[in-house]
Amino acid sequence: MALRVTAQAPKAPLLVIHGGAGNITPQNLSPEEELSCRMELKRALETGWKILQNGGSSLEAVVTAISILEDSPHFNAGKGSVLNRAGKVELDASIMEGKTGMAGAVAAVTRIKNPIQAAVLVMQKTPHVLLIGKGAHKLAKKNGLELVPNSYFITPKQKKVFQKLKSKAQKQKKDGRVSERKFPSQPEIKGGTVGAVALDKEGNLAAGTSTGGMAYKMQGRVGDTPIIGASTWAENNLCAVSTTGHGEYFIRGVVAYDIAALMRYQKLSLSQATQNVIQKLTEKGGQGGIIAIDSEGNIAMPFNTPGMFRGYIRNGGELNIEIFADE
Amino acid sequence: MALRVTAQAPKAPLLVIHGGAGNITPQNLSPEEELSCRMELKRALETGWKILQNGGSSLEAVVTAISILEDSPHFNAGKGSVLNRAGKVELDASIMEGKTGMAGAVAAVTRIKNPIQAAVLVMQKTPHVLLIGKGAHKLAKKNGLELVPNSYFITPKQKKVFQKLKSKAQKQKKDGRVSERKFPSQPEIKGGTVGAVALDKEGNLAAGTSTGGMAYKMQGRVGDTPIIGASTWAENNLCAVSTTGHGEYFIRGVVAYDIAALMRYQKLSLSQATQNVIQKLTEKGGQGGIIAIDSEGNIAMPFNTPGMFRGYIRNGGELNIEIFADE
Repeated sequence: MALRVTAQAPKAPLLVIHGGAGNITPQNLSPEEELSCRMELKRALETGWKILQNGGSSLEAVVTAISILEDSPHFNAGKGSVLNRAGKVELDASIMEGKTGMAGAVAAVTRIKNPIQAAVLVMQKTPHVLLIGKGAHKLAKKNGLELVPNSYFITPKQKKVFQKLKSKAQKQKKDGRVSERKFPSQPEIKGGTVGAVALDKEGNLAAGTSTGGMAYKMQGRVGDTPIIGASTWAENNLCAVSTTGHGEYFIRGVVAYDIAALMRYQKLSLSQATQNVIQKLTEKGGQGGIIAIDSEGNIAMPFNTPGMFRGYIRNGGELNIEIFADE
Repeated sequence: MALRVTAQAPKAPLLVIHGGAGNITPQNLSPEEELSCRMELKRALETGWKILQNGGSSLEAVVTAISILEDSPHFNAGKGSVLNRAGKVELDASIMEGKTGMAGAVAAVTRIKNPIQAAVLVMQKTPHVLLIGKGAHKLAKKNGLELVPNSYFITPKQKKVFQKLKSKAQKQKKDGRVSERKFPSQPEIKGGTVGAVALDKEGNLAAGTSTGGMAYKMQGRVGDTPIIGASTWAENNLCAVSTTGHGEYFIRGVVAYDIAALMRYQKLSLSQATQNVIQKLTEKGGQGGIIAIDSEGNIAMPFNTPGMFRGYIRNGGELNIEIFADE
């Protein structure tokens, strides 16, 4: 056991996070926004890192990092989430641990301050994997998670985005130019889903994802984020994955699990497997990105959008944060 | 085109259905129940078959067959579904078509008479894959699906099962013998989830699944049935899959998509791939079964429970229905 830990020292611990992929360019991200986002990502990485350095689990590090990004108004998860067509915030989150293969998720919750923590409760305190709405709220309350009014999540910025999308949708509908099947285009949406993957000193992988979903989504729409295998996957001795992007494409592509399948069944490397799924996603017209690590400590962070908030920390504290495609 | 259809004549059309896997033995299924179940399965197969024979799509055949089983009180889907801890019925369903890779699903709906038809609406009328609760009800109503009071779904038989499980759970809780994490054991539950997979004359595959979920589940629990890749998968030139069983194991195993992955990446046959996932399921302690077909018209129907309601129709009307393991 001691030998195994020593052998893993260069590759573990390791923490990688994302704050969403999207139309993120130097032109449409103000210097103030950029700085705030970088600082929040740094804080999430450093706080998670401390846990891993002190021998904490990858699960704990993932949940801590995601909770920080949920609390930040800069990302589309927890506070700062996008609004649905009813002008409300509905949140999805999921967690998976590679050691046991156990998983938990919540969907369409409207009052849980940190949905990722509710996902952990589903995994640890119930016989279920996915709980939605009222059932999830009951569980959260019973176990002492903080409940907040829906207005807590709504920032002035996202309210403005909602008003814009609503006007656009109403105008398009009036003009007969789009059916309900189409979203109004969303150039305003820059941040996105948040997620984290980690490898701890014991060699255990974990992955988690949390989101407010697509802006102007229909009430009750559930994306890929709470779907184990679509957005989140963790399997010891293989890989841990968290995705961000247009969720419907990730569900239909079973993207997170497909990476694991390509590595296990076709012996692809992490880099090859993640490139493969991004290519398939692109061919189908889906946009988004992936953070993934393998049990050797390799990192992959491919995306097919102009930018993705992303970063990692490893090797005694080496920290890296990137936003744009050409960094 | 004509040539292609002719070449496929021996293998298509083809329709396979299931009515759930579980503790189904000659000892605990009365002759009357057995006969009723066989008749309902036969009716579902023959009605779906007529559609396929007349050149209808695999999607249409799957939805029609599943709707018949939803309307039957003998299966745990639509009318006759199990009750959750709140004494209510909450229904999940999903559909996928192999030609386009498009999919739709609903979860935790309480008033839609035929959830599988609502899943089709999500696929065809919205930009989403999964809609839950109120959002799904709105969509169903707007598009003319029949809404019913929750009491419509509740049969005297399932009410009795609920009372039994409730007493058992309360007693176990009082005795401090089980936590909320465990279900009370469910020997009473014989029927289950329903599903169908089909191959039409055009060579298009489709798959669908519909369920009331686990008996005595927590309110808001969503199982594998509405999860594309866990319970339902259809991909032209590869396979169509519908599963039944303890949903949490199927979610964590991404079972339906894993069959496709094994066939595509490891070149396993349908029979090998389905046996492989059932074996993994068994090793993890999960119970259930699978119906699957490939684009060559091969059929696999493995399960690791005492029985599974299942049947197929092909080759100009050759009909086969089985229930127990040793048939």
